[in-house]
Amino acid sequence: MSDTVSFILKSSTTQTIGVLKSILAKLAAHAAATSVEEAVFLSARLYPDMLPLTRQVQIACDTVARGAARLAGLDMPSFPDTETTTAELIARCDKTLAYVADVSDAAIDANERVTLQIPIGQATMPMEGRQYLSGFILPNLHFHATIAYGLMRSQGVALGKRDFLVP
Amino acid sequence: MSDTVSFILKSSTTQTIGVLKSILAKLAAHAAATSVEEAVFLSARLYPDMLPLTRQVQIACDTVARGAARLAGLDMPSFPDTETTTAELIARCDKTLAYVADVSDAAIDANERVTLQIPIGQATMPMEGRQYLSGFILPNLHFHATIAYGLMRSQGVALGKRDFLVP
Repeated sequence: MSDTVSFILKSSTTQTIGVLKSILAKLAAHAAATSVEEAVFLSARLYPDMLPLTRQVQIACDTVARGAARLAGLDMPSFPDTETTTAELIARCDKTLAYVADVSDAAIDANERVTLQIPIGQATMPMEGRQYLSGFILPNLHFHATIAYGLMRSQGVALGKRDFLVP
Repeated sequence: MSDTVSFILKSSTTQTIGVLKSILAKLAAHAAATSVEEAVFLSARLYPDMLPLTRQVQIACDTVARGAARLAGLDMPSFPDTETTTAELIARCDKTLAYVADVSDAAIDANERVTLQIPIGQATMPMEGRQYLSGFILPNLHFHATIAYGLMRSQGVALGKRDFLVP
């Protein structure tokens, strides 16, 4: 056992949830500068059957909070999906950062190679802790953060690639 | 030292470069079914100053090939960016999968906590091997794969979230 699973989970969370906070702040400034209501940007979708920007942020947060809980054998945390503004979504990111930071590294790393039963849709998939991190938590975290970034870019918020990597 | 860095790098590569192959094949079928040239889809951008779909696939491939080389202390591989069709991009993915699979796990894992000098733009950043994986390779891999997925979705290719997780 090493501490690489907790290290990668926590540093990825700090980086990418931190990125979401930063780009949400840039979205707020863009909305104010263009006198367009935030709700217009936050309800945007890349395609009609994809989820809107608000849900992309909420799901990115849940992915790491629930992922950390599952890796550490804790009860699932539940945050109500009630945010309607960038300020509220930034607060959701802060709650998520605090939650993940508090999870015990040792409890996470104890499951590095333990087979966990991961519910996916209606089914349950057996996965080692490190496989759950690599194959589920990280691609989902980065997927929803990237779609949020893409939704901002496609609506004219001035962001560059560096904004996706550095909070 | 554990083998978790090589495990996460290689399993993430197999999964997400594999996903790109699968969704490129679905794009090819969609282009054929709608009698629209593949080049129309492959040149699409989410926003004028973002890179087109072809480049997103090429950069996702380079991210893991060069990342694996840098982690293992090898010379940088170089693949020419000449692809113009889905079949050629799928072949690029196959070359990438073969390249990463051949890199020595032991050479990668030896750098788990060694500080590497990573060139980023004009600068060089010192990063431990596992930080380079977590903070650079994985978010870039997933970012470019997600933008490729989003470009396909926004052009009407019938994909679901599962297509991003399971090759």
